[in-house]
Amino acid sequence: MSEENVVYIGNKPVMNYVLAVVTQMNGGALDVVLKARGRAISRAVDVAEIVRNRFITDVDIGGIDICTEEITSNEGANTNVSAIEIQLSKE
Amino acid sequence: MSEENVVYIGNKPVMNYVLAVVTQMNGGALDVVLKARGRAISRAVDVAEIVRNRFITDVDIGGIDICTEEITSNEGANTNVSAIEIQLSKE
Repeated sequence: MSEENVVYIGNKPVMNYVLAVVTQMNGGALDVVLKARGRAISRAVDVAEIVRNRFITDVDIGGIDICTEEITSNEGANTNVSAIEIQLSKE
Repeated sequence: MSEENVVYIGNKPVMNYVLAVVTQMNGGALDVVLKARGRAISRAVDVAEIVRNRFITDVDIGGIDICTEEITSNEGANTNVSAIEIQLSKE
């Protein structure tokens, strides 16, 4: 899968990310992966649900993975943060 | 699956829910389902990751589902909220 098909979810409004996904799919992408960490995980789920319920109704959740990523802060301390990947696939 | 095996994730500290899962599994439960809505979704992922990385290492993620639930507020307005279910299974 090309890097273009990944949408990283951050702290912007949900609809920004929904628009990014819809744009990619309307441009011909059959799969888009949402990636999020920490508190943005809830927003990633919102994005997936809004896309498939309101915008592209033939999109299915291809798979959901969760994992733990280790982040090194500027001070050099390591902290663990949960991450999620949600694959959206057009039928 | 009996209702006992469901842990609803809310706004309490993460370790409260981790303890609830560990207690159920040590009591013989082979499957525990975490359910969360809205902003608690991130916390549910944290709980799953902490349980399987730190406490019960033979636990696997059996499956993850996301959906949208309609909530009626006290004033009668309907709002949609995303929800997640994470199944933890002992091997």
